[in-house]
Amino acid sequence: MPTAVLTLLSDFGTTDAYVGIMKGVILGIAPDVRLVDLTHAIPPQRVVAGAMVLRQAAPYFPPGTVHVAVVDPGVGTERTPIAIETERGVLVGPDNGLLSLAARDQGVRAVRRIENPALMRPVVSHTFHGRDVFAPVGAHLAAGIPFAELGSEVGAFVEADVACARVAPHGIDGQVVHVDHFGNLMTNIHADMLAGVDRRTAQVLIADIAIGAIRSTYAEVETGSPMALISSWDSLEIAVRDGSAADRLGLSVGAPVRIRFPRSEFRDAAS
Amino acid sequence: MPTAVLTLLSDFGTTDAYVGIMKGVILGIAPDVRLVDLTHAIPPQRVVAGAMVLRQAAPYFPPGTVHVAVVDPGVGTERTPIAIETERGVLVGPDNGLLSLAARDQGVRAVRRIENPALMRPVVSHTFHGRDVFAPVGAHLAAGIPFAELGSEVGAFVEADVACARVAPHGIDGQVVHVDHFGNLMTNIHADMLAGVDRRTAQVLIADIAIGAIRSTYAEVETGSPMALISSWDSLEIAVRDGSAADRLGLSVGAPVRIRFPRSEFRDAAS
Amino acid sequence: MPTAVLTLLSDFGTTDAYVGIMKGVILGIAPDVRLVDLTHAIPPQRVVAGAMVLRQAAPYFPPGTVHVAVVDPGVGTERTPIAIETERGVLVGPDNGLLSLAARDQGVRAVRRIENPALMRPVVSHTFHGRDVFAPVGAHLAAGIPFAELGSEVGAFVEADVACARVAPHGIDGQVVHVDHFGNLMTNIHADMLAGVDRRTAQVLIADIAIGAIRSTYAEVETGSPMALISSWDSLEIAVRDGSAADRLGLSVGAPVRIRFPRSEFRDAAS
Repeated sequence: MPTAVLTLLSDFGTTDAYVGIMKGVILGIAPDVRLVDLTHAIPPQRVVAGAMVLRQAAPYFPPGTVHVAVVDPGVGTERTPIAIETERGVLVGPDNGLLSLAARDQGVRAVRRIENPALMRPVVSHTFHGRDVFAPVGAHLAAGIPFAELGSEVGAFVEADVACARVAPHGIDGQVVHVDHFGNLMTNIHADMLAGVDRRTAQVLIADIAIGAIRSTYAEVETGSPMALISSWDSLEIAVRDGSAADRLGLSVGAPVRIRFPRSEFRDAAS
Repeated sequence: MPTAVLTLLSDFGTTDAYVGIMKGVILGIAPDVRLVDLTHAIPPQRVVAGAMVLRQAAPYFPPGTVHVAVVDPGVGTERTPIAIETERGVLVGPDNGLLSLAARDQGVRAVRRIENPALMRPVVSHTFHGRDVFAPVGAHLAAGIPFAELGSEVGAFVEADVACARVAPHGIDGQVVHVDHFGNLMTNIHADMLAGVDRRTAQVLIADIAIGAIRSTYAEVETGSPMALISSWDSLEIAVRDGSAADRLGLSVGAPVRIRFPRSEFRDAAS
Repeated sequence: MPTAVLTLLSDFGTTDAYVGIMKGVILGIAPDVRLVDLTHAIPPQRVVAGAMVLRQAAPYFPPGTVHVAVVDPGVGTERTPIAIETERGVLVGPDNGLLSLAARDQGVRAVRRIENPALMRPVVSHTFHGRDVFAPVGAHLAAGIPFAELGSEVGAFVEADVACARVAPHGIDGQVVHVDHFGNLMTNIHADMLAGVDRRTAQVLIADIAIGAIRSTYAEVETGSPMALISSWDSLEIAVRDGSAADRLGLSVGAPVRIRFPRSEFRDAAS
C-alpha cells in the first residue's frame, strides 16, 4: 500500500510555529504519512477563500489523500468539527463551509461529526483545534482507521456562500473571486459556461474596462497589456502579460466581470 | 524503529535557498529523516524570539526528535556550537540562549560542545554554520550516532534573557512577549500563576487599557472587541475577536500587562 | 537504493496552492520521492535571479537529485521545455536560461527536449506547465525512467544573461547581483578572482562608498558598520554587522562594486 498523503491548508501563516506543531502531532500518530502544505496564507478567517483554494488543489492529489483544512473563526464555539468522505479521499475541518466546495466537486459519500475523544489530544483547548482535533484526526485517518470511528453520521454540512456567475441578456455576468500571487484576477465564470461560444468574438469587460476577446495564451498580447483567457483552473482569468493585472487595473476580489457576445451569436444561443 | 524527525527553526526567511540547502545537506547524511519546518521567520538575530517559539513547539513532537535551531548573530566568532540532550530529544544550535528555554522545559540530561570535525562539512565557513555545522550534526544525530561523539561535555549553557512576570501588590505584572500571525498579543503570564484565582472577577489591563475578565473563548465578546483569555500555550493572551489585537490596540512586544484581583480575593491570596 | 530527492524552485509564491498542486502531481507518480523547496519567492518572471539561486543550492544535494525549476514568462509560447543531465543530477524546466548556471557549474552530460506526452498530464494547459509538464516529468525521472525517454537530444540550451565581474586597471569591477533575506549584498566577484591578493590591503568600494579591506568574519567590525567579506557562496559580499546592508547603504541589485589593490600589488599582478 502506498503511504498516505495528508495536506494542510490554513490561515495560520508561517511566522509562528502553529503549522509545525500540527505536523509534530501528526507524525507522532502517523510516522510515515507524506505531508504537503497547500497554503497557510489564506487571509485570516476568510473561509470562502480557503474553500476555493481547497477545491482547486484537491483534484491533483492521489486517491485516498486526507485534506486537513483550518480556517476557523468559530473555534471554541458550538460549531461542529466534521469529516467528509468523498469519491477521492477525506476532508477534515470545521463545519463552516470550508470543506464544502471541494466536497461537492469530488462527490460526497458520507459526512461524520468528529466526536471520538480517543482520536483527539487528551486536552482540547478552546483556541487551537488545528492542533488538538483536526491534526490528530487527520493523522488517524491517514494511518488507516475506519471513517465510521470518527463519530455519528450527519445528513448535511454548511455550504460556502460563494457568488455565482449567471447568464445575462447578452452574455454572462460574474466577478473576481481570487487574486493570485502574480496579480492575476480569477473569476467565477467557469469554462463550461462558454461551451459553444466563439471566444474570438466575445468581448470581456472588467469594471467596465473593455479588454477584448478571450485569448489562448499570454503571448497573444503585448507585454503590459490586459487580457482575458481561460486559466489553469478552467475559469475566466484577467491577466496582464508579464505583469500584475491587480496592480495595473487597480482591481481586486469583487470586481464585476462581464462577457458580451455579438448580437448574432446571442440570437443563436437564445433560440 | 520509526524514522527520526528533525525540525528546523531559523531567521533565514524563505526568499533565499538557505533552508533548502540545509535540507540538502541533511538528506545526504540521513536520507530517511522526516523534516519539519517550525518557522524561518524569526526576526533577524532575535535570539529570544526564537527561543520562545522553540519552547512552544518542541513538546508536540515525538520522543527522539532532533531540533536544529539557528539564530546566530555571533556566527564566525568564538561563541560555541552545542547540543543539549533532553528527556524528549536533542537540541542543536549556537550557545547563545536559543536552545535554553526548550531545554529547561524538557529537562536537561547532558550538554556537549560540537567539536568533532567528522560530523561537519569538510570546510566550515565563517558565515553559514547552519549549513556547515548544525545541519550535518543534526542529521548524524537523527541517523543514530551516539550523543557522546559530538565533543566534550560542558557543565552549562547560555540562558535566554527573558522578561518574567511577577506577583505585584494587588495582582500580577507581566508584558507582551510575542505577537502572532493573527495579531494576538502573547504575554509572559503563565496559567500556573493564576491557579486558585477567579478568572471571572480578575481585571486585565494592557498599557492601562482595561479589557475586563479572563474569558474562556473568543466567542464571549462581540466581534472587534478586545479580550483576555488563556492561549493554547497556557499563558495569558490579549486578542480581538475576528481581528488583530496588535492593530486594534496599537501595541506590540514589551507592552505592559497587569492583572488585578478584587480586594477580598487579594486578601485571601496574601494571607 | 536511497530514495530520490526532488527539489522545487519557482516564482509561484506560497499564498496560492500552485506549489502544493505540483507536489500532489509528483506524489501521484513517485510516492516515495523526498521533496524539498528551494524557494518559491523568486521575483515574478526574473529568470536570472532564479538561475543564480539554483546554482547556489544545487551543489549541496545528494547525487542523483532532480531539480525542477519554473520561472517561465514564456509559458504557452514556443519556448521549449528541457531537461539537462549533469554530473550530479538532472535539471528540469523551461529553456530560457533558468537551468543554465547550475548546469554549467555541475558539468553537462546531455540535454533533451521534453516531448514524450506519456510523461506529461493528459491535458497540458497554456498557463501552468509547472503542473502539467515539469512536475510530472521530474517525478518520472525521480522514479527512475531513463533520461533518453524524455525526447530528442538537443545540442544547446539558452544561457542566462548574467553580468560578469572583470579585471580593471587597478583591481576588479563587479556589481551586486542578489540581496538576501538579511539585506546582505551579494556580488558577482568570485573568490577565485582574488587568488594571490592580500585581502587585508585590498580596498572595497560600493557605489563609491569606501568600506575597507576584505574581512574574514562579521565580528571584525562594530555593530552597524558596513564591511566586505567572502560569503558562504565563495563570492564577495557587502554586509552590515547585525543589520541590513541594503537598508543601511540604500543599495540593491546592480550597484557597482570595485576592489582596488595597493599600487605595488597591482604592479605585481600586471607584470
